[in-house]
Amino acid sequence: MTPTDSLETLRDALREFAAAREWEQFHTPKNLAMALSGEAGEVIEHFQWLTAEQSAALPDGVRGEVALELADVLLYLVRLADVLGIDLAEAARRKLAINAERYPVEAARGRADKYDRL
Amino acid sequence: MTPTDSLETLRDALREFAAAREWEQFHTPKNLAMALSGEAGEVIEHFQWLTAEQSAALPDGVRGEVALELADVLLYLVRLADVLGIDLAEAARRKLAINAERYPVEAARGRADKYDRL
Amino acid sequence: MTPTDSLETLRDALREFAAAREWEQFHTPKNLAMALSGEAGEVIEHFQWLTAEQSAALPDGVRGEVALELADVLLYLVRLADVLGIDLAEAARRKLAINAERYPVEAARGRADKYDRL
Amino acid sequence: MTPTDSLETLRDALREFAAAREWEQFHTPKNLAMALSGEAGEVIEHFQWLTAEQSAALPDGVRGEVALELADVLLYLVRLADVLGIDLAEAARRKLAINAERYPVEAARGRADKYDRL
Repeated sequence: MTPTDSLETLRDALREFAAAREWEQFHTPKNLAMALSGEAGEVIEHFQWLTAEQSAALPDGVRGEVALELADVLLYLVRLADVLGIDLAEAARRKLAINAERYPVEAARGRADKYDRL
Repeated sequence: MTPTDSLETLRDALREFAAAREWEQFHTPKNLAMALSGEAGEVIEHFQWLTAEQSAALPDGVRGEVALELADVLLYLVRLADVLGIDLAEAARRKLAINAERYPVEAARGRADKYDRL
Repeated sequence: MTPTDSLETLRDALREFAAAREWEQFHTPKNLAMALSGEAGEVIEHFQWLTAEQSAALPDGVRGEVALELADVLLYLVRLADVLGIDLAEAARRKLAINAERYPVEAARGRADKYDRL
Repeated sequence: MTPTDSLETLRDALREFAAAREWEQFHTPKNLAMALSGEAGEVIEHFQWLTAEQSAALPDGVRGEVALELADVLLYLVRLADVLGIDLAEAARRKLAINAERYPVEAARGRADKYDRL
């Protein structure tokens, strides 16, 4: 990855992409939230019948397809944050800090009995 | 946003977070795909009863909550890509290039009759 | 609809379908929950770029496709309840009763400021 | 389950529930598709950190919570079909017939290499 991989760069590229096609009219937060969820559903369909082990050893072809699905999720996520005026990188830093406090290393070590886990 | 907002930086922070808590055992691609989908569902719940107009004018309090939900999606997405060995920024660039070819500016202008739209 | 449209009839048909194909091994609750979510994602993709008005006036062809997606959701839902030993019809009756208490007619009339709405 | 457990009975109860609260205005297909997807996300959150074995042996308390989540999915699904004018039971029968043809018993026995699996 390079210094141009920032979320800001991606946000600007998507903004320009939408503007050139006059797609801002379709990019309401409501619609983009739906698109995000639909793409997350496509990711899950790749894994639903796999064991945990199989999911960690995807054939190259499948991994390439999954990579593009993950990219779709990222594109819609970045675009949704943009139309909402949310600084996604800042929100991620804030959430990481919250999680660090919520799951202290000693208490959380090796435990799966909580739902949030990042 | 700052130069440290790259997806690479975030990936490394999450890797360290999981390692410190011995959570790698829970972070199979299958489980993380589920977590990603669950978080996308939480995003959608914020918008389901809103009109398009309301979705574009969230009260500050709600927008703050949505920001943290979007952060959750990003954290699981970055972590999922990492455990799959996928370069998320590279995949996003590749998908953008595919979309630019699939939706030429002239043909796609102002049209909502396709599903993919980024 | 006919008297055979009960959820119980459908449950039995799916049980037999899976047994004949020796698919019980894949039908863990975890996997079926993923399949359910994936199908819900396919439903949403049909609606994401439509206005509320367009969503209520689908062309016949699209409505036929959506009907089969809704069927997929129902099949996985019934199968998931079955492998969990959950009586889905009884749970639905219980949830309806809870909702009736949670949203008294007078207080809830015409108000969209709650998330649950059934 | 009783003869009153038909999807038709449930559809009528939900129709009456919405009418009494003047909620038809919120129950566009687009909104209900979102609610369906959001509830499917809540189901998945119960299972995301569980192994396949754990998912098949839920403690009673958790199973009771999951039962109500499955009920939510069913309520929104039935309501969505209703506002779209789709006969859900008929669609389910049609989809079962399609699946029976798509996955002949001999060819499909014990195989997990297809995505659709009901």
